[in-house]
Amino acid sequence: MDKLRVGVLGATGMVGQNYLRLLENHPWFEVAYVAASPKSAGKPYAEAVAGRWNLDKPIPEKVKGLMVEDASNIAAAKGKADFVFSALDLPTKDETKALELAYAKEGFPVFSNSSANRWTEDVPMLIPEINHGHLSLIESQKKNRGFSKGFVVVKPNCSLQSYITPIHALEQKGHKVELLVITTLQAVSGAGYPGVPSLDMVDNIVPYIGGEEIKTEKEPSKIFGKIAAGKCVPDESIKITSTCTRVPVVDGHTACVTMKFKGAKPSKEEIIKIWRDFKSAPKELKLTFAPERPIIYIEEENRPQPRKDRDSEKAMAVTCGRLRDCPVFDYRFVGLSHNTVRGAAGGGILNAELAYKKNLL
Amino acid sequence: MDKLRVGVLGATGMVGQNYLRLLENHPWFEVAYVAASPKSAGKPYAEAVAGRWNLDKPIPEKVKGLMVEDASNIAAAKGKADFVFSALDLPTKDETKALELAYAKEGFPVFSNSSANRWTEDVPMLIPEINHGHLSLIESQKKNRGFSKGFVVVKPNCSLQSYITPIHALEQKGHKVELLVITTLQAVSGAGYPGVPSLDMVDNIVPYIGGEEIKTEKEPSKIFGKIAAGKCVPDESIKITSTCTRVPVVDGHTACVTMKFKGAKPSKEEIIKIWRDFKSAPKELKLTFAPERPIIYIEEENRPQPRKDRDSEKAMAVTCGRLRDCPVFDYRFVGLSHNTVRGAAGGGILNAELAYKKNLL
Amino acid sequence: MDKLRVGVLGATGMVGQNYLRLLENHPWFEVAYVAASPKSAGKPYAEAVAGRWNLDKPIPEKVKGLMVEDASNIAAAKGKADFVFSALDLPTKDETKALELAYAKEGFPVFSNSSANRWTEDVPMLIPEINHGHLSLIESQKKNRGFSKGFVVVKPNCSLQSYITPIHALEQKGHKVELLVITTLQAVSGAGYPGVPSLDMVDNIVPYIGGEEIKTEKEPSKIFGKIAAGKCVPDESIKITSTCTRVPVVDGHTACVTMKFKGAKPSKEEIIKIWRDFKSAPKELKLTFAPERPIIYIEEENRPQPRKDRDSEKAMAVTCGRLRDCPVFDYRFVGLSHNTVRGAAGGGILNAELAYKKNLL
Amino acid sequence: MDKLRVGVLGATGMVGQNYLRLLENHPWFEVAYVAASPKSAGKPYAEAVAGRWNLDKPIPEKVKGLMVEDASNIAAAKGKADFVFSALDLPTKDETKALELAYAKEGFPVFSNSSANRWTEDVPMLIPEINHGHLSLIESQKKNRGFSKGFVVVKPNCSLQSYITPIHALEQKGHKVELLVITTLQAVSGAGYPGVPSLDMVDNIVPYIGGEEIKTEKEPSKIFGKIAAGKCVPDESIKITSTCTRVPVVDGHTACVTMKFKGAKPSKEEIIKIWRDFKSAPKELKLTFAPERPIIYIEEENRPQPRKDRDSEKAMAVTCGRLRDCPVFDYRFVGLSHNTVRGAAGGGILNAELAYKKNLL
Repeated sequence: MDKLRVGVLGATGMVGQNYLRLLENHPWFEVAYVAASPKSAGKPYAEAVAGRWNLDKPIPEKVKGLMVEDASNIAAAKGKADFVFSALDLPTKDETKALELAYAKEGFPVFSNSSANRWTEDVPMLIPEINHGHLSLIESQKKNRGFSKGFVVVKPNCSLQSYITPIHALEQKGHKVELLVITTLQAVSGAGYPGVPSLDMVDNIVPYIGGEEIKTEKEPSKIFGKIAAGKCVPDESIKITSTCTRVPVVDGHTACVTMKFKGAKPSKEEIIKIWRDFKSAPKELKLTFAPERPIIYIEEENRPQPRKDRDSEKAMAVTCGRLRDCPVFDYRFVGLSHNTVRGAAGGGILNAELAYKKNLL
Repeated sequence: MDKLRVGVLGATGMVGQNYLRLLENHPWFEVAYVAASPKSAGKPYAEAVAGRWNLDKPIPEKVKGLMVEDASNIAAAKGKADFVFSALDLPTKDETKALELAYAKEGFPVFSNSSANRWTEDVPMLIPEINHGHLSLIESQKKNRGFSKGFVVVKPNCSLQSYITPIHALEQKGHKVELLVITTLQAVSGAGYPGVPSLDMVDNIVPYIGGEEIKTEKEPSKIFGKIAAGKCVPDESIKITSTCTRVPVVDGHTACVTMKFKGAKPSKEEIIKIWRDFKSAPKELKLTFAPERPIIYIEEENRPQPRKDRDSEKAMAVTCGRLRDCPVFDYRFVGLSHNTVRGAAGGGILNAELAYKKNLL
Repeated sequence: MDKLRVGVLGATGMVGQNYLRLLENHPWFEVAYVAASPKSAGKPYAEAVAGRWNLDKPIPEKVKGLMVEDASNIAAAKGKADFVFSALDLPTKDETKALELAYAKEGFPVFSNSSANRWTEDVPMLIPEINHGHLSLIESQKKNRGFSKGFVVVKPNCSLQSYITPIHALEQKGHKVELLVITTLQAVSGAGYPGVPSLDMVDNIVPYIGGEEIKTEKEPSKIFGKIAAGKCVPDESIKITSTCTRVPVVDGHTACVTMKFKGAKPSKEEIIKIWRDFKSAPKELKLTFAPERPIIYIEEENRPQPRKDRDSEKAMAVTCGRLRDCPVFDYRFVGLSHNTVRGAAGGGILNAELAYKKNLL
Repeated sequence: MDKLRVGVLGATGMVGQNYLRLLENHPWFEVAYVAASPKSAGKPYAEAVAGRWNLDKPIPEKVKGLMVEDASNIAAAKGKADFVFSALDLPTKDETKALELAYAKEGFPVFSNSSANRWTEDVPMLIPEINHGHLSLIESQKKNRGFSKGFVVVKPNCSLQSYITPIHALEQKGHKVELLVITTLQAVSGAGYPGVPSLDMVDNIVPYIGGEEIKTEKEPSKIFGKIAAGKCVPDESIKITSTCTRVPVVDGHTACVTMKFKGAKPSKEEIIKIWRDFKSAPKELKLTFAPERPIIYIEEENRPQPRKDRDSEKAMAVTCGRLRDCPVFDYRFVGLSHNTVRGAAGGGILNAELAYKKNLL
């Protein structure tokens, strides 16, 4: 079988680098096109990214020599890529939103990590373990916008991936949740490179990440939303409040979660069993990036920990621990996921794999 | 004026070291006696603590040559100390509790950092800015137990000092609080030395501190309690739930706080004004360790931060920031205090200074 | 082909854990026996190591249920292991030395990470890329000591693995080195768990590691030694002076090296070519742990860096960079290797693989 | 006595911030003027530095409201400052060099931290403990350049302050040094803010600092130089080779030093005595920033350490330890100094205090 040719937009940034690393040796997809800002354009990838490659694996050999194109030049991608991953970070969100839609108009399926199109009504915000059914929005999107083959699919913010799948698993079994109070301890890779200055992260934490709390609180409502009349109608039945902090960890966002159910609460044993038994569409469809165990529960009282648990299931699992009674609400637990894999490039690839299996590529 | 002679029990540990450092050049008190475990006993202090002195200031010259005594030998302290600070950490809490009471029985006022006597009914758990009136328990304690001059006063756990004074300030002005959801990001010095292994604190956080959450949730009720019939009756009107985590910070505990008032909520401006105007007994009594501003509010959106704010007001202030609306409850804010000063030795000294000014020493 | 059954002595410590992790799915060897101190003995491995497993991969499934034996009970290993890896850390070196030799006497080939037998005259100290020929000492060792099938082979200290292979590569091509001035920046995993306290590694470095400098300076002489009359005669022609420091890095020892050649110095280009072309016995013998490129040279001026380069070639390579003229001697460069893989368990496995291919197991 | 009015050029950067902090409450000097780049000009200082103030003490009250001027506008400083500290960091060194000399021409004594004028022949590069006599160059400088009251004095790079005073102390007592091999482990504050990205400093070190090694190796020759014919003639009798690395430490540069004497070597006891007895001109002149003990020697084998020793003597001392025999040369030791105080703003203030006492201001 010939592999599909992939383009990566924003290929020189942190998320773009992760796409290239994770797609090395992918069985269905092959990176064939890389694009970035005008100042990187015209250089071989290895040269364009010199001094900024920040991963603990080297630049994939096949990518080193690819000529970087200007991401704003959609024509250059024609005939070179069958679909694209967008890790674009243009000066304004409106520009990013418009450029992603323009790629779609030109016939490219776009799988985006950007927040620009997350609230576009006919764009699905996907976590395949939760709302794979939202892919049906693509048909409306194409119709609304006169797209032939192209479309835009987005993934949500990395901060919520550490708790949203465990919550979904409970709701799926009939245990409706009505309240979440969340504090996140987020890794520095989430801010890109150079990102957070080391003077802020040696003997320090920063209890603030610009724009992060509102995403953490609002995006679940769209993921849990219902598709009706070609739109996603957000489900706002879970009230969420959050504090997002930055800690000196390379990769892995930790979420400390306090929760309250709408009705009677399940027992701790039931919750753990539901998490461990959770069946996911990605696994059933045999997506290559699907975690064998989408939700892992660890009994040891001091886990999950970023360095020790973030890489579980090729960094695509959510690891939970410390489920315990709450003296005020129902339960508390700690969730963890790898922010640049599960929460960024790996999640984007999973979205593309889902579309591939559903014959949308 | 002659200075009072101070004994420090548990003088070789982290809290004990901080007592010695902070008492250097104290205007009213002078360290005259140091005691620790039998294996340190009989050595000059500098020798007993060799390789374990962990502060960024050197051992005070006057203390270096003091002979370390066995803390279990109360007789040795007689005639050498007018009162003692207890940073004891005996194998069991019962032993610590008993030894502190035994010192009191032998005539020593004891100011303790240990958790052993925190729930002893006739022992006040003091934060002078909040419940200085609880000192009246000492009279009952003496009567109940037949103590002549001695007594025991304790301070609460370090984890709650980052938010409890700001909450008290609001309540004092009539804004009763009914709910607190708290996540702490605590410094490694809180675990003593050697304490937390570096393998747990490089590229990592640990979302668990043994026994810390229950203290964080329960101790405020005693601090806010009412004295009646020679006992402190806890005030359980504030419901508290917490998650306590360890982060790679040397000193300074951060608390992320979500709160709900019992009745109508004050405006943000009112809250900030109340905090900034907060008058404290320690300051009015001109205690030397009293912070000029007990509660500091910083407007910058990414503060407080441990490294930049923990030392404010000689490390005795609580610094707040990020007061913002909550989409679920009333407000959220971040509080910070220095755990080994405000939350440990400095807090203990403030307690002793209060007793001194009240003629209890 | 049936796999050889491996025993790991000292299986619960940091090096032991790495052996278990690295041997998972090994094509020739299978962990069949684990032993540790008496207090771990009698428990399933997962229970014995609970709270101390520190790797970023979970405990291998096959090992979890193995019953931990008392390492001092050699008889227990009989019939269960074909050879053993020793990561023993008994109270004295003499005890470790004696126990390793006792295992050998009882018929077990022993591949040791301990320093106890490094200076035993008939015990080879092996880095297969450098002195695989020293394996011939085994025959003398068996004869001297009346061993039938057993023997002891050791590996050198982790601190020297970051520069010794590059030096060997140059010497092999006729460029004799006469002086090395070395400063190491060593990772905390080298001290085991709990190891270095976090209070020493947050906003700090420690310019001292007990016993490390003497090993760094002396062990190369044995590795470069000549076998004569059944002994290894150290080659002391390279003068080495070192300073060993501890830095807040999880894995990966960095060595800053200043060097002087005995005669005319090769050009920088020649040195880099020699390193890149270096052929190693492990690779030619197709040992599974042999790095494809034993020495990697990176051109970027700010490399090698521990987090980015330690995992190269499955963490078995030495990565060099910053080769530059020296205003006083000939050249300076920076070398890096993974201390718990290349410098510990991976190196031990490579030694065993070499013995296996030479039909010594 | 009226205080002299001080201007700080480059006041918003890291070094500038340290000047403002350290000059708060200075007995002879008072900050009266702050200047920075055009984009800060015209704002009150507190506003210009918002989000960039990085010290663990707050902005001095008196400075908050000072209007920031454009540093290139020398006329603005007239009548407002009696002399200036330059922490300028213009796009090119030539621009900085020219601007500093232009300030001098306009009558301002300039005490600079920049490297721009370090090799200007008639500009003294001062460490008052070592070469206070070089102040005599000022007279030649004024004459050569037609300056009336103004002049330029510079301080050397921060990296060499951790070992150069101890070396000077030995030479002063007749023990000529001929070789130094140095590896530095430098703090992140040396790179300013934002400076080193946290992704390079969590679980990592960087064995490279651009331009640092050449300064470390060359600048001592000017400091140790002789004044002749109105110029400083460098003394190149000490051969120096260095490797400069960056480590995750906030403040405090550590230097690992290997040294060889020209003639017979003194004993260890002699060296330690020389260091401890070292008399310095700053102390004899009672300069307020003079350390009581310019060189501290610590006996504990694992010291000096940045966090524990950098603040000694108000962060103006050099702390040494680990003096030990060298198997190749004569001795090895570890030196430490506070890079933003001793190595930057504090050193600059000491230079100005020296000039003040010598009636040059």
